[in-house]
Amino acid sequence: MSLNSLQDLFVEQLQDLYSAEQQFAAAQTKTLAGVSDSDLKAGIEQHGQETQAQITRLEQLAQTLGIGSLSGKTCQAAKGLVAEGQEMLGEDGDPAVKDAGIIASLQRVEHYEIAGYGTALAYAKRLGHQDAVTALEQTLEEEKATDAKLSQLAETSINAQAV
Amino acid sequence: MSLNSLQDLFVEQLQDLYSAEQQFAAAQTKTLAGVSDSDLKAGIEQHGQETQAQITRLEQLAQTLGIGSLSGKTCQAAKGLVAEGQEMLGEDGDPAVKDAGIIASLQRVEHYEIAGYGTALAYAKRLGHQDAVTALEQTLEEEKATDAKLSQLAETSINAQAV
Repeated sequence: MSLNSLQDLFVEQLQDLYSAEQQFAAAQTKTLAGVSDSDLKAGIEQHGQETQAQITRLEQLAQTLGIGSLSGKTCQAAKGLVAEGQEMLGEDGDPAVKDAGIIASLQRVEHYEIAGYGTALAYAKRLGHQDAVTALEQTLEEEKATDAKLSQLAETSINAQAV
Repeated sequence: MSLNSLQDLFVEQLQDLYSAEQQFAAAQTKTLAGVSDSDLKAGIEQHGQETQAQITRLEQLAQTLGIGSLSGKTCQAAKGLVAEGQEMLGEDGDPAVKDAGIIASLQRVEHYEIAGYGTALAYAKRLGHQDAVTALEQTLEEEKATDAKLSQLAETSINAQAV
């Protein structure tokens, strides 16, 4: 695609996030199988449901904006982030240490999404797409909350067990 | 490597960040060549110098902690982030729109680093590595400042030109 306007770039960013979310959702089952801590497991399951809702939200957004399907792009960064997460799942070691490592991978994923949705939100504001602003703000807040929960779980429990 | 303690994971995280920083530094020349806005160019050059200092800081940290070389690991996520950045550089389109897209890619990189250094910092605190805490806090603040500067440049100037 040719990027001739901020609207073109906005669509490209939504396609990127759509691909990223789908790749992260697809990796979830394998991640869950590698986790030992029950709170971490519950947190990942809850965020998995949120991810599905975020994917639907992107689809609805695309429909509202009349920009057609968001499919067809592969987010290369998400591919790398998922590969890195799989590497961590494949490591030998103590279960609590691996849980801490999985949190480290998941927080990198959350930060990818925080950057991506933050960018898309700034474009939506600039372009005056009010529905998109509302939807993207909701997802962005969810990603930030997930990141904060993962930090809390690591710092109050799992990192200490991993020492 | 086997991850038997938080110290093992701390070393693994430093190796990951070392690989990531080197990949980001290697991509810089090509990024600069694709940028049109002079303020963005200057910002990337300045952050390139910071990146070199951050690489040196990681090497010194490894020496202080007696953990040997940080080389040998390839950060898969950084590979994906760089590939995504190259994709953006290869797009056709309006120079201001491409600049906005390059900022979007660079902010994803900054967020990868914010997550990575944030994690390493939490481990250093937990492990009582005071020198590491100081060094990692400094780098983390630099990454956050770069991210904020990129947001400001996008929101006060480049996004408006890109509309």
